[in-house]
Amino acid sequence: KAWELNYHEAAIYLEEGINNDKFASHPKSQEALPAYLLVHNHWYYFLDFVASLILMLLALTEKPAHPVLELPIGIHGSIELLSLMIIGAELIMKLRWLGMKTSISHTRTALKGCALFVMLIEAIVILVRQSSHIRVTRALRPVFILDNHYSRRVRRYLRQVLQSLPPILDMLVLLLFVMLLFSCLGFYLFSEHLDNPYFSTLSESFVNLFVLLTTANFPDVMMPAYARSKWYALFFVTYLIIVLYFMMNLMLAVVYASFSSKEKEKLKKLLLHRQTACQHAFRLLISRKHSNSVNFKRFSGVMAFLSPTKSKRDTYLIFRLLNVSRTGVLNLSEFQHVLDALPIVWKKKKDSCKPYFNSYPKHFRFICNLIRKIMLWQSTQYFIYFVILLGGISMVIRTAVSSSNGVMPFGSMGESIFFVAFYNLEAILKLIAFGSKEYFRSGWNAFDFIIVVLSNIGMVLEFLGYFGFMIVRHARLLRVFKIKKRYRDVFGTVFMLADGLASAAVVLTLFYYFFAVVGMELFGGYDMKNCCKNSSIQDNYVYDNVTDTYGYYYLNNFENIITSYVTLFELMVVNNWYIIMKGFAYVATEWSQIYFMSFYIITMVFLNVVVVSVIDGFIFRIQYKSTMSKEEEEKLTSQELVVTKSELHSVGVSEDEDSITYIGCSHLTRNVRQSIMYHTEIEDWLKNSTTTQNGNSFS
Amino acid sequence: KAWELNYHEAAIYLEEGINNDKFASHPKSQEALPAYLLVHNHWYYFLDFVASLILMLLALTEKPAHPVLELPIGIHGSIELLSLMIIGAELIMKLRWLGMKTSISHTRTALKGCALFVMLIEAIVILVRQSSHIRVTRALRPVFILDNHYSRRVRRYLRQVLQSLPPILDMLVLLLFVMLLFSCLGFYLFSEHLDNPYFSTLSESFVNLFVLLTTANFPDVMMPAYARSKWYALFFVTYLIIVLYFMMNLMLAVVYASFSSKEKEKLKKLLLHRQTACQHAFRLLISRKHSNSVNFKRFSGVMAFLSPTKSKRDTYLIFRLLNVSRTGVLNLSEFQHVLDALPIVWKKKKDSCKPYFNSYPKHFRFICNLIRKIMLWQSTQYFIYFVILLGGISMVIRTAVSSSNGVMPFGSMGESIFFVAFYNLEAILKLIAFGSKEYFRSGWNAFDFIIVVLSNIGMVLEFLGYFGFMIVRHARLLRVFKIKKRYRDVFGTVFMLADGLASAAVVLTLFYYFFAVVGMELFGGYDMKNCCKNSSIQDNYVYDNVTDTYGYYYLNNFENIITSYVTLFELMVVNNWYIIMKGFAYVATEWSQIYFMSFYIITMVFLNVVVVSVIDGFIFRIQYKSTMSKEEEEKLTSQELVVTKSELHSVGVSEDEDSITYIGCSHLTRNVRQSIMYHTEIEDWLKNSTTTQNGNSFS
Ligand code: NA
Ligand code: NA
Repeated sequence: KAWELNYHEAAIYLEEGINNDKFASHPKSQEALPAYLLVHNHWYYFLDFVASLILMLLALTEKPAHPVLELPIGIHGSIELLSLMIIGAELIMKLRWLGMKTSISHTRTALKGCALFVMLIEAIVILVRQSSHIRVTRALRPVFILDNHYSRRVRRYLRQVLQSLPPILDMLVLLLFVMLLFSCLGFYLFSEHLDNPYFSTLSESFVNLFVLLTTANFPDVMMPAYARSKWYALFFVTYLIIVLYFMMNLMLAVVYASFSSKEKEKLKKLLLHRQTACQHAFRLLISRKHSNSVNFKRFSGVMAFLSPTKSKRDTYLIFRLLNVSRTGVLNLSEFQHVLDALPIVWKKKKDSCKPYFNSYPKHFRFICNLIRKIMLWQSTQYFIYFVILLGGISMVIRTAVSSSNGVMPFGSMGESIFFVAFYNLEAILKLIAFGSKEYFRSGWNAFDFIIVVLSNIGMVLEFLGYFGFMIVRHARLLRVFKIKKRYRDVFGTVFMLADGLASAAVVLTLFYYFFAVVGMELFGGYDMKNCCKNSSIQDNYVYDNVTDTYGYYYLNNFENIITSYVTLFELMVVNNWYIIMKGFAYVATEWSQIYFMSFYIITMVFLNVVVVSVIDGFIFRIQYKSTMSKEEEEKLTSQELVVTKSELHSVGVSEDEDSITYIGCSHLTRNVRQSIMYHTEIEDWLKNSTTTQNGNSFS
Repeated sequence: KAWELNYHEAAIYLEEGINNDKFASHPKSQEALPAYLLVHNHWYYFLDFVASLILMLLALTEKPAHPVLELPIGIHGSIELLSLMIIGAELIMKLRWLGMKTSISHTRTALKGCALFVMLIEAIVILVRQSSHIRVTRALRPVFILDNHYSRRVRRYLRQVLQSLPPILDMLVLLLFVMLLFSCLGFYLFSEHLDNPYFSTLSESFVNLFVLLTTANFPDVMMPAYARSKWYALFFVTYLIIVLYFMMNLMLAVVYASFSSKEKEKLKKLLLHRQTACQHAFRLLISRKHSNSVNFKRFSGVMAFLSPTKSKRDTYLIFRLLNVSRTGVLNLSEFQHVLDALPIVWKKKKDSCKPYFNSYPKHFRFICNLIRKIMLWQSTQYFIYFVILLGGISMVIRTAVSSSNGVMPFGSMGESIFFVAFYNLEAILKLIAFGSKEYFRSGWNAFDFIIVVLSNIGMVLEFLGYFGFMIVRHARLLRVFKIKKRYRDVFGTVFMLADGLASAAVVLTLFYYFFAVVGMELFGGYDMKNCCKNSSIQDNYVYDNVTDTYGYYYLNNFENIITSYVTLFELMVVNNWYIIMKGFAYVATEWSQIYFMSFYIITMVFLNVVVVSVIDGFIFRIQYKSTMSKEEEEKLTSQELVVTKSELHSVGVSEDEDSITYIGCSHLTRNVRQSIMYHTEIEDWLKNSTTTQNGNSFS
């Protein structure tokens, strides 16, 4: 019973090592374990995630909302209360195992608690009063999603963004300083020109030069002055060269420098954290009798909690893999690699090379084998590329012809049928040849398969008269690019970066949510149609049913969360954003420009970090590829292990053969790749930390 | 006499090593030396440079030109002919020493020859006919500036840009492919909407999505579709995310990767070239008797040609510095460092630390010393910062007040007088304290001095009633930023990058010249006032004297080379560039859009390279600073050398003291810094090359 608790806690330590959680959130005492375990399981994680997500989605149904989606206050209020209570339950559990004191010092938990408390009260008030009021607190809802177990990577990304802030802020100060100088200069130069509306006051001058930093009002902002004297162009050209071309690029450089210096630090921290986690777990697994080693019984005990789905055989194979010294027990330095060995997938060697259809009846096997051979031919591959290319070219020609004729419908149905049929046939043959497992292991095949499914849908839509969707199938042309090395590099980077980019997208979405809610509360009530009379942007907001003239910018509003997201995207793209800003400045107050300007600065900073992470990822990949050949990589990702029948029998696994060779396959994550690249430095880090730790805890 | 020729040729080899010229342009035989020397002297370089520059500036005076600057055909034609003849003279000389065959295989020379030939004929034709015709060949004039001796760095930069082209072109192909797919999709989706002018034909669709890549027509291009259904926003958002946010950033990453991989290669090539140059020179300086070494007589012989301004003493000190073995003669490995030692400036040690006023009368010396001490105080520095800050703040407040009052004039003259007087005083005191040499050695002091001069001019202008210029003095606020380390890093990078950025600016100017001339020939004849009736950009070109409404875009034209440059700058900034493009497409032909689109692509590529070089420079600086401390750097830049009186006497220099210590100071160029950073790799390169060369030429 006591060992069970130890296993449990060791598993928790190891999991904290994997997830890179701070040990601060580790249960205080073994009595707190039940509370910890209740909340730390995937059912609860999922429930928490769903509750947080629903809470965010509620913005779709709360006022101001699209009429189709709007729900009565009673309903969305109750859902909100329920979600908050689910989230609250986890918090209370956490308080129990962490103790009040640690919780408060744990910033994220404290923040979450406060937000939760305010929102609970607000939800109750709304349910009681049955009417909405200003609800800016909704802007804090992303906090719950961020705190969820599944958002680890997103949190890490956000932390990275926040860490790049100090240098960016310094550069922003410099930027604002230069802008201020130029604002004053612009004011002195142009405020006397009565036909120049851009510099009539200092604040006007500043705002317009701020917009000019984004280039959105260029060259219009220059034109009245330029019409007076060509020499005034110098003012604007100088400003743009200094601020836009020089300082903004320097900002990117500054971010890059701080980002790349943090990358190694991060890796070091992560590895040391994992090492410490293993040490904590190890200490829980040793007994008085065996004070320096862990035997298989203890090892499988902790593994049963850490990954309950692992079979006895796999657990033993991991144990054997770790046990380099072949002593039958793991010492600390062997045990410390347990987290690296965990994701390995084991297979018998003789099974691993054979195609899936080897156990099928003879005739079937023969056909499958034939198809497999044909599909593996280089020329088959090129033939498929050729057909894809043909499809693309014929589509472009057909579209061009129908564009010049003005004749609809665009497609000749026969052609579509031919190409879609060909793609389907290809996918089916490949599936037969390789089996679904081998087929889908390649990202490109998965991509192809999705495109084929989509083009079948497109085919159906074409029968119904919608032609646009059929373009999707030509995305397969991307595959043809793969022939050239550079494109393989680019696509490979895309795969490698997918993780980070997904996190970036989530962070951006959450951050949009914040601004969307604030925007709705501030500007949701205004109808922008025909606003801004007698201002320079009047034409953009025209809405005239009679003469059929529309300026369309009234559509860029904060009516509901969906239009808010689109409006924010337009602001992020930056072009003509000042028209939207000036519109709301006109109908609301001049001060609302602060909202738009701060949104610009934040997205700009964020996008800078994203750009930098893309550059860094690309360069890392190229360096990595130049140090590692494909063969070396293969060696690292697959391990061979020979095990005897009796060995397996002793741990309760029965096998027929006397000696079986197993192959363990693992994926290369970015962290593993980094570990390979910097292995000499890593050895130093770990050595140093062991010696210092030995002095402290293992003496 | 024969030795003189050898010295001369050795000096040429060494100079080729410094300038990183190919040895292909080395004179074929010693008989060709006179022709080579005639052209390779600074008088001729300068003449060639002036001729090339005048040739370019002629565009100011040739039709179409600003009426003030326009010259009669006879005058500018004659000037052109003269300039071309000067440039031609060098080419003929070059042919003489290089031989016809080598000249043709030397691409740059061959190209220059062709351009020169065509232009000469054209200039004569114009002079004879006394009327201008279409003169697109003028666009090639930058070739002559590029070929000038002083444009070495610019050529190197251009080469770097051209080397980054292949990966960029690959990415552009991918980009165009995605754009084409989306064009087709957009055409299918929106061409049936009669109120949507952006996708009515395939080419319209492509051009508008091309413009959307630059964001210039966003969100307008989306609005008609968005008004029909909110779902259509997905099309545009997806397009922008893929093309703008993803692929354009990936392009930057690709450029960065290829750029940074080339940097080391470049350094290697440069160093090996210098090594080879030294070897060639060494071979010319050895005699039968001393087949492995160069004595001082030979050394000073070659130095007399290589840098004639160097004193006997300095030549000897360099010789001594190189002669590490103290044998009195230089062997090859010692001689190979001659190019590194060349820029060292020598000083007696006892003189080097003393302030300039040490030899002045006593009283004067005392006052100078006092001022020096005061100016060196930390608190004086902070007091100056405080005054500068005060001046800045008071200016902003004063401007803000006068902006809200609407009262002119803005300045209180007294304040300006106080601050300008203070700055003058500070500059004078510092000049007294440190002497002009020491004062101007610091880039910051030079900056201050320029600002002070400018603010004196501003003061005069203020007396005359022009207030704008006085803002310039507040640029001194930049100095206050220096307090923080990050800003020092940033400013330091600016100094380090100044060289490359200047080259970039020159390349851009030359490249603008090409497009400006082509633009003038294509579009110079059109008057854009009130053009484009019944198109969406009509309002931008309005010119109505009666109602006083101006769209101002008619000012963005190719009337003369100055307005062309401004127009091209506006196109480079990209915002609203499509209004200019569509304007000329309307008055000329749809095909003129190709001019604008290719200009965009080329500037975009170019700016990408510039951004990448800024990032790379910044990161290099940070890495360099982290490996080198200030003290280590000082050690590298100053060398001590002890020389006896008799030694100096033997080479014809008389000194009083028996033993004199000299200090040699040198600057750290980027190449030297790189050599320090990569010294282990460099040793390998040089070693490898020596062993292979020993096998060939020195056996
Ligand atoms: Na824009
Ligand atoms: Na823009």
